[in-house]
Amino acid sequence: MSNKKIKVYRDLMGENQKWATKTRELLKNKNISMYNFIGSPGAGKTSLLEKLSDLLKDTINFAVLEGDIATTKDAERLDNKNIPVSQLLTNGSCHLEAKLIHYALLDFPIDTLDMVIIENVGNLVCPAEFDVGEDLKIAVLSVTEGEEKPLKYPLLFTEAKAIVVTKTDLLPHIPFDMNLCIDNIKKINPNIPIFPVSVVHNTGMSEWVYWLKELTKK
Amino acid sequence: MSNKKIKVYRDLMGENQKWATKTRELLKNKNISMYNFIGSPGAGKTSLLEKLSDLLKDTINFAVLEGDIATTKDAERLDNKNIPVSQLLTNGSCHLEAKLIHYALLDFPIDTLDMVIIENVGNLVCPAEFDVGEDLKIAVLSVTEGEEKPLKYPLLFTEAKAIVVTKTDLLPHIPFDMNLCIDNIKKINPNIPIFPVSVVHNTGMSEWVYWLKELTKK
Repeated sequence: MSNKKIKVYRDLMGENQKWATKTRELLKNKNISMYNFIGSPGAGKTSLLEKLSDLLKDTINFAVLEGDIATTKDAERLDNKNIPVSQLLTNGSCHLEAKLIHYALLDFPIDTLDMVIIENVGNLVCPAEFDVGEDLKIAVLSVTEGEEKPLKYPLLFTEAKAIVVTKTDLLPHIPFDMNLCIDNIKKINPNIPIFPVSVVHNTGMSEWVYWLKELTKK
Repeated sequence: MSNKKIKVYRDLMGENQKWATKTRELLKNKNISMYNFIGSPGAGKTSLLEKLSDLLKDTINFAVLEGDIATTKDAERLDNKNIPVSQLLTNGSCHLEAKLIHYALLDFPIDTLDMVIIENVGNLVCPAEFDVGEDLKIAVLSVTEGEEKPLKYPLLFTEAKAIVVTKTDLLPHIPFDMNLCIDNIKKINPNIPIFPVSVVHNTGMSEWVYWLKELTKK
């Protein structure tokens, strides 16, 4: 036997998929829906969740898994809303993986829940590549990012099953063309529902919340 | 010899570092400065480069390497400014690597250049991990992303040697606290120069351009 060192490549995606499948079975058994919110840093994911907690609190019992590289700032914001929330720190990694999600779910009072929302690490690229056992991925895009982002980051906008376009209150102050943005999205994902919203002005929220409730109802 | 398939793990970071070192030698020999601009999707990196091309055109000869996952939209914008620009498409990958940068540099009219700017893939996480042979990394953060981003994405804001805070023209319309943002940056990188700018209103640009010129002057 030679003593040459052979580096072994572990099939990490296979390992991730195993945990995603396990999570999907768990959620099915418990009749819980799980959505994976993915968007850039500062797209307004946490603000959207704060607003959802106000709008859904009497109809859907939900918990949040907050993904971040460092700090517990987002989880603290949601904790103020009195919803179950856990902070998942990736310690440098650019996305959440299925195993961490699975264990965090087991620590929730899972039998009381209808829905779990994952706020993934702020990143338009890597989180889209990982199945974490969610029912579906939802893309969050702010108008300040520009109309061309769906074309420049095609994986997420192809994988997503809905797109929330945030910060529409800023439209009077920026040269963003909503119709062009929608055309760009339709080029890569023709039938996807698109929800332009402003959390600050509370516009567009009822359509978006209605869609989410219909998807989640028992 | 067994026919068991052994997967081989290539030391990719070592490979990357080899190309980064090679690039650094090339740039030193040619007396060219190279800066790696890193920020979120929509932070305003391309607009900043368009503006730089106007402000620097008579003093510094520079070229741009445009990193994107898909589309040549950003390179087209800069091509309109008549500066040498190449589009580097990563085909799904979330960051630029040193080998691609090296070969793209060799294709430029390199003896005519004083400076090369890399616009990395829009991502606050992964591009910060890769040395591509640059002199230094410059973080680009827009005010619409929020004051806490330097704490939530500490690697980039620690690695960076300057921070440009963009879109300050939007400050009257959003609850962004510039002093808090600067305090957050100083917590992880106490002496870093910070340049708040608006490309639209052309404010803060002269300090930022002065700093860049001083750094680059021959």
